Amino acid sequence: MASRIDHWRELGQQLRIDSIRASTAAGSGHPTSSMSAADLLAVLVDKYLHYDFQTPQNPHNDHLIFSKGHASPLLYAVYKATGAVSDEELLSFRKFGSRLQGHPTPLIPWVDVATGSLGQGLPIGVGVALAGKYLDKLPYRVWVLLGDSEMAEGSVWEAFDKAQYYHLNNLIGILDMNRLGQRGETDLGWNSAAYTARARAFGWHVIDVDGHDIAQIDRAYAEALETRDVPTLIVAKTIKGRGVSFLENKENWHGKALSAQQAEAAIIELGGIRQIAVEVPKPEPAPAVAGPEKKAPKLPTYQLGASVATRRAYGDTLPALGAARSDVVVLDAEVSNSTYSEDFKKDFPDRFFEMFISEQQMVAAAVGMGVRHRVAFASTFAAFLTRAYDFIRMAAISQANIRLCGSHAGVSIGEDGPSQMALEDLAMMRAIHGSTVLYPSDANQTAHLVAAMADQPGISFLRTTRANTTVIYAADESFPIGGSKVVRQSANDRVTVVGAGITLHEALKAADQLQKDGIAIRVIDAYSVKPIDRETLWAAAGATGGRIVVVEDHWPEGGLGSAVEEAFTISAGWQNPSALKISHLAVQGMPGSGQPAELLDAAGISARHIVDAVKKLA
Amino acid sequence: MASRIDHWRELGQQLRIDSIRASTAAGSGHPTSSMSAADLLAVLVDKYLHYDFQTPQNPHNDHLIFSKGHASPLLYAVYKATGAVSDEELLSFRKFGSRLQGHPTPLIPWVDVATGSLGQGLPIGVGVALAGKYLDKLPYRVWVLLGDSEMAEGSVWEAFDKAQYYHLNNLIGILDMNRLGQRGETDLGWNSAAYTARARAFGWHVIDVDGHDIAQIDRAYAEALETRDVPTLIVAKTIKGRGVSFLENKENWHGKALSAQQAEAAIIELGGIRQIAVEVPKPEPAPAVAGPEKKAPKLPTYQLGASVATRRAYGDTLPALGAARSDVVVLDAEVSNSTYSEDFKKDFPDRFFEMFISEQQMVAAAVGMGVRHRVAFASTFAAFLTRAYDFIRMAAISQANIRLCGSHAGVSIGEDGPSQMALEDLAMMRAIHGSTVLYPSDANQTAHLVAAMADQPGISFLRTTRANTTVIYAADESFPIGGSKVVRQSANDRVTVVGAGITLHEALKAADQLQKDGIAIRVIDAYSVKPIDRETLWAAAGATGGRIVVVEDHWPEGGLGSAVEEAFTISAGWQNPSALKISHLAVQGMPGSGQPAELLDAAGISARHIVDAVKKLA
Repeated sequence: MASRIDHWRELGQQLRIDSIRASTAAGSGHPTSSMSAADLLAVLVDKYLHYDFQTPQNPHNDHLIFSKGHASPLLYAVYKATGAVSDEELLSFRKFGSRLQGHPTPLIPWVDVATGSLGQGLPIGVGVALAGKYLDKLPYRVWVLLGDSEMAEGSVWEAFDKAQYYHLNNLIGILDMNRLGQRGETDLGWNSAAYTARARAFGWHVIDVDGHDIAQIDRAYAEALETRDVPTLIVAKTIKGRGVSFLENKENWHGKALSAQQAEAAIIELGGIRQIAVEVPKPEPAPAVAGPEKKAPKLPTYQLGASVATRRAYGDTLPALGAARSDVVVLDAEVSNSTYSEDFKKDFPDRFFEMFISEQQMVAAAVGMGVRHRVAFASTFAAFLTRAYDFIRMAAISQANIRLCGSHAGVSIGEDGPSQMALEDLAMMRAIHGSTVLYPSDANQTAHLVAAMADQPGISFLRTTRANTTVIYAADESFPIGGSKVVRQSANDRVTVVGAGITLHEALKAADQLQKDGIAIRVIDAYSVKPIDRETLWAAAGATGGRIVVVEDHWPEGGLGSAVEEAFTISAGWQNPSALKISHLAVQGMPGSGQPAELLDAAGISARHIVDAVKKLA
Repeated sequence: MASRIDHWRELGQQLRIDSIRASTAAGSGHPTSSMSAADLLAVLVDKYLHYDFQTPQNPHNDHLIFSKGHASPLLYAVYKATGAVSDEELLSFRKFGSRLQGHPTPLIPWVDVATGSLGQGLPIGVGVALAGKYLDKLPYRVWVLLGDSEMAEGSVWEAFDKAQYYHLNNLIGILDMNRLGQRGETDLGWNSAAYTARARAFGWHVIDVDGHDIAQIDRAYAEALETRDVPTLIVAKTIKGRGVSFLENKENWHGKALSAQQAEAAIIELGGIRQIAVEVPKPEPAPAVAGPEKKAPKLPTYQLGASVATRRAYGDTLPALGAARSDVVVLDAEVSNSTYSEDFKKDFPDRFFEMFISEQQMVAAAVGMGVRHRVAFASTFAAFLTRAYDFIRMAAISQANIRLCGSHAGVSIGEDGPSQMALEDLAMMRAIHGSTVLYPSDANQTAHLVAAMADQPGISFLRTTRANTTVIYAADESFPIGGSKVVRQSANDRVTVVGAGITLHEALKAADQLQKDGIAIRVIDAYSVKPIDRETLWAAAGATGGRIVVVEDHWPEGGLGSAVEEAFTISAGWQNPSALKISHLAVQGMPGSGQPAELLDAAGISARHIVDAVKKLA
């Protein structure tokens, strides 16, 4: 045992040295935040982590998430010790083209998710642990290295709460309590009693250790493996910059690389460069895990002319997908009887996860379940997805495939008032890299789009409407992502009106009224807001003299109007620049409470306003 | 005493009845969530709340925040009992044009901030309490009514943490633990021991009461007033729908109004309509509070040609504002040595508030300090403002005037990689109602814009750059919000290039290169992204044959490109539609780590790409 402790101590020193070497070679990075956690990682990877570096897709692998992503030098030093990356690659840290970026991303095959925005690793770990315990039903564990600064992020406490609620004994948090944040002491400093009390109050098993006492660390991990029904937090008191006298517990060393000369001195003090190789334990040989069962879903259908909310169709479609595919899971943030995701819960209670009112945790759990190849749909009011924007942004960097549904979009929700109205969600979701933004106007269309989302890579978002709307499409029509529908057209169209969701129905009313006045318009249903159907827009512009009215239940900035305007740029491929007259109707003024029709009209996006805008252009 | 208890009991029944009457008249709303807290409010407003309804601007008033904003019928019933609103107005609840909206907003003079997105009232209350204790130094108290469902929001725990850290004994949370959320039981149900343990672990004084035992409630408030140095949470076990047999503790009654017939039965069971008038205690007569001292700030100045980061200029300008105005306060989320807000802290430590890594709490505190008329600037990396998007959205509904600074924008930050790069912030901030979005390219411009933000109503956002950029403007130039600068122009301009921030400097490099090829371009610095300077864009389009290149360090959607494209719509006032050729350069592909120049080039937004785009158009 003594020799193994010595081995771990030596390995810890090597991880420190390599963290310094990598960051000094880069000229930036976080060596001191790596050094505080080096001993914790040395023991973990040599004895407790079960991971097959040759086969990162092995379903029996443990998961290691660096929630404190800035400690990437430590993670990469571990990879070097395991032989997964070479010393040469280690020294490519933070260089252009290297996969060893400033913060970990899944460009590295052993990294599940991108971290670097603090407070996200633990909530995502909750998602992976939920998958392990309830879906995969495999004994792998999820180890999450936490910084102490990030314990101030509320999202961490959402994760603490849900991990207790779901009895995630397969989740182990390792708190690297090194006292120092970026610009000084954290709000709790080395007050391990406070962290311990908080975690215990949230129902966790807590083990306090000296994070540089190898034997204590060893015992803590062993104890964590023994917990039943509750997650474990190891509160490790550590020293930032541990092992180097001029770095230890010093301020003003956060996120700074050592100079070459400083690095040399530090490496000498740490005992010199080592080349210790680590044999990370592999998971026990275990039966192969069967892939998901998949067949074509039998989608719900709706009669033409029926009055059905698109959120209702979302709720109807989820169980159809659940029946067709065993990998579909659904999450909701305590509003499943409004988003109608509750219908899935009724049929597939084992694949439904109530996240209560914690939207950040909900999105993080969807990302975590995606790590385990689940097709996760997560829903709440679209307004409240704003709560999780940083998680959605990071999910794109994580290359996650997740599906978000935001209900109760726009002023058309009526009496609840502006706090419940999503009026910025299209802008927010369009600005996510590689995202898909869908906004159906009828129930059959919704069913098809929800089904398509199951196979859509990246972050996809469906905006649904609270109110009932008329079914205008036959159930067997197709609605490809990136497409649109020309709902009205004639040879004499004077103006093109582009709407989506609730405003498409206002556009149709306007078309009827205008027809009485002898003005024909083309009406386009831009249900795929991103990618938008440029070709159809271009053709319509050509046919209607460049006269276009765009109408949306959203603030004027960044939504459907912007999507249409972008389509008419040279960089978007538009090749026939000619006089273009775009009139954009979007929500004007802060809405209040009222009936949907009153609010649509007051916002300037009702049929009456469309008629006026068309007449001004025509 | 007995008669007072009877009085409160009767008042509680009245508040229940009026909550039912208002919501039944509206046909929607949350009577049962109001009824659970009615006794808590009856005792509070008749004895403990000190508030002058005639003078809501009285600085000595207490503050009452309904974090559970859906209990608005209860709040409005209180207003009726005080005589502040008539019974007739009470029954206008949720009707179009009524200020008694579905969730409270500051259209009502006694409402400080909009609520309705859960988990925001307590963090905002922290801001008001910080102002009371450290800025106003007045003895008013901040009472926050919390729902139990919202205790799952991480933001609530950010507030618990900061309230302890800042010893906010003037903050009293009242937890209406009625067990039932929207679609069923909350995750902790009636487990008051769990709530108590959590709040205690976060350093709060906790009092457990039966929320329908008037005498217990009375004692709890009295005890809360006596706490020194720590905030108080009253955990009140209550019954949703209390007092009406068919509503009490029943599922499926959340957010539902009673029918007229049900309401009649309920009112009979509650003892019939009452007209009890409440005399809310007024604050003790106290000396008038002096307004802030204000003079013109002496802004920092920078030499033409010097190399200075705009974030550096932000940090330099804050102390200048602090010296000129006593109402300026600064908050930061633990990165003040990167945003450079630490410079303000050095000069004005009493007006600087460290919020640690809790961006939601930071924005909420800024809103709360704004309630007390402080001119709050809050800063972090722009990428991490995404964390607070729901708070920013709600701040606009609150009619708050807050100033946000997001540093480290775009791929130009370099080695830290995508998790730290704001690439969606312009889209996000533009889509906030009434927002101002500023993106300076040089230090002198930054100083002027920061100064202008101090007087700017609404939500204003300044995007700063990590890297040093060349000072191109003299210190005495003016930079009005809504303006722009034409940085290069000649009679022979073939193309207009619009940039801002870091890309303006790339545009200038491109102009130099193009000049060598005999191609003159007009270069516009669109430092005011919202409102954008339409007239200057229109003039430039006219002068350069409609050929425009827009270049930004942001994803392609919703940012500067969209702002420019919107300017060329009929609805934006553009009156000369002619062939418009817009080429839009924005970040292509997920960036990694690297040097700023490498990343700008890889993203397709460097001078080289601008040159190519211009040549294709010209």
